[in-house]
Amino acid sequence: MRVFNFAAGPATLPLPVLEQARAEMTDWQGSGMSVMEISHRSAAFVAVAEQAERDLRELLGIPQNYKVLFLQGGATGQFTAIPLNLTAPGATVDYLNTGVWSKKALTEAKRYCTVEVVADEAASHYTTVPAPGSWQVSAEAAYVHYTPNETIGGVEFDYVPDTGTVPLVADMSSTILSRPIDVSRFGVIYAGAQKNIGPSGLVLVIVREDLLGRSRANTPPIWDYAVMAQEGSMLNTPPTFGIYIAGLIFQWLKREGGLAAIGERNHRKASLLYDYIDASGYYKSPVSRNARSWMNVPFNIADPSLEKTFCSEALAAGLANLEGHRSVGGMRASIYNAMPLQGVEALVAFMRDFQQRHG
Amino acid sequence: MRVFNFAAGPATLPLPVLEQARAEMTDWQGSGMSVMEISHRSAAFVAVAEQAERDLRELLGIPQNYKVLFLQGGATGQFTAIPLNLTAPGATVDYLNTGVWSKKALTEAKRYCTVEVVADEAASHYTTVPAPGSWQVSAEAAYVHYTPNETIGGVEFDYVPDTGTVPLVADMSSTILSRPIDVSRFGVIYAGAQKNIGPSGLVLVIVREDLLGRSRANTPPIWDYAVMAQEGSMLNTPPTFGIYIAGLIFQWLKREGGLAAIGERNHRKASLLYDYIDASGYYKSPVSRNARSWMNVPFNIADPSLEKTFCSEALAAGLANLEGHRSVGGMRASIYNAMPLQGVEALVAFMRDFQQRHG
Repeated sequence: MRVFNFAAGPATLPLPVLEQARAEMTDWQGSGMSVMEISHRSAAFVAVAEQAERDLRELLGIPQNYKVLFLQGGATGQFTAIPLNLTAPGATVDYLNTGVWSKKALTEAKRYCTVEVVADEAASHYTTVPAPGSWQVSAEAAYVHYTPNETIGGVEFDYVPDTGTVPLVADMSSTILSRPIDVSRFGVIYAGAQKNIGPSGLVLVIVREDLLGRSRANTPPIWDYAVMAQEGSMLNTPPTFGIYIAGLIFQWLKREGGLAAIGERNHRKASLLYDYIDASGYYKSPVSRNARSWMNVPFNIADPSLEKTFCSEALAAGLANLEGHRSVGGMRASIYNAMPLQGVEALVAFMRDFQQRHG
Repeated sequence: MRVFNFAAGPATLPLPVLEQARAEMTDWQGSGMSVMEISHRSAAFVAVAEQAERDLRELLGIPQNYKVLFLQGGATGQFTAIPLNLTAPGATVDYLNTGVWSKKALTEAKRYCTVEVVADEAASHYTTVPAPGSWQVSAEAAYVHYTPNETIGGVEFDYVPDTGTVPLVADMSSTILSRPIDVSRFGVIYAGAQKNIGPSGLVLVIVREDLLGRSRANTPPIWDYAVMAQEGSMLNTPPTFGIYIAGLIFQWLKREGGLAAIGERNHRKASLLYDYIDASGYYKSPVSRNARSWMNVPFNIADPSLEKTFCSEALAAGLANLEGHRSVGGMRASIYNAMPLQGVEALVAFMRDFQQRHG
């Protein structure tokens, strides 16, 4: 029996996608082979990768002057790849620090650039986002990097920063495809797959063409955006099964009505949960109202000694992986695209019941 | 209906492994989740990764003073990672050039080191391996790199080079697990998964502990052997599904009798095919007898105009992906561990029939 899985990533996937993968596991499209056993250079697999890119372009409305890359090494690999691709030695780059993942990204960039932390939400213990106008792009910045959604803190920007002509770089790992965005506002968007795209081991990069060809001499070829754009992401063997699953998920998203419909549903799911938390007088969200993530919802009980009981009783009720990140404790419900409204309703019903019994 | 799939990689996988993956696709071990939906830091997944490592150590007899890493970025990523992990700027390194993959590895190393090509089989058009004693380790070499099996050329070393105290580094992508080896002869072994290990998107590194901690300052953290050894290959989210499938394949190999039994079977498969080719008076192997790969068997017909017909008729007979690499043409049968003896027997029967009809 399937459970409602609130893990932060790797995370729940749409059941119809898993069912299709299961049905084709030993004989994909009548080939007599699994899709895992097909050459990445075969016409059949190239068609899979091209269809995935077309569907993603349609879903996100990606303009023609952007390249779509399917790479390896996760968002953590991109922490290295971003400065190598976009700057020359001696460059200054701007980072907004809003939590654990911003911090990791800027720490890695320091190995290659002078990093200006132009906004830092330490004072609020990373429960806020910097207000527009409260921070400025450095005069010399080669790019501005931010993390639109912090998976651990559950902090999400409610605006896209205006950086003028300076390229805006965004780690969208835990928010991509959760609602429509205007891709033309960004220089580079990257996202680890294991939340809203597919299985782990795949990272998506969307890069504006005029930013290609600036890479440093010591950029690893498999992360060099110009090289990988030229090679259709196949300089070497790509993670074929991951691309196949991502493609199935993009098709599922289209069947669900695209990002406008998905965004509306996600907003409803998040509102249901936050409204209940706020009204409960028992649970608490640590995050400022304007910075609350649609995807990752951390919450606490006044009595932290009950948190372990909460999670184990929830699991027994078919609500899995509600433990907060080990660095912050508490609870966290990740409610990505594949989490149905019924899952959030079941969670709220459980929280209400738990409060009645323990509150 | 399943076919016999002779692709060079991604390649055929054992049917029982695919069937188990299918059976557990939506509910893995009663968790109510796919293994793809499980956190990499959960006890359940850590147990999967640890079991995979234990089984691999048992299969290959990996000594205790070696670390086993499961990384991303393929062998091509390791072409970059090897010099970054093992040398300081200004170092000299030795490479043996026996074909396409050796050449790619040494070309990348040139970006970081002075590369001495201490053996080069260009004169034979890469159909030979250098004889032991015919080449020497450079006085200053930080390591010696070679490609025990060239996937495209079908050229395999019939000996392990003796490099004295200089670490020997081997790209074993297309030969690993095909027979027993003495791991203690090597400093680093690496291998892309998509031949004998599992799906693409995973690369295995086996590294001797005394070689850890020598990495350059600009080594990407996800490829820094010391960092990844410290983190149990989980500095960031690993390719969890790939590790799961690899683990199932290691268990399958153990059930099949381990590498001694597998090696015997592979030797039988390869001998059957080469003996038939040599005796046919119609097909030809371009590779010197002592350098013939057990895993990748390129062959030609005297009349190249028949090669296309050969491949399409073979496919119709359920023998798929016999086309040679696009860079060399001809035919190639990759007969990795998961290719049963019956597959090679069916190929030989087809070749005999084709010769009778067209020869």
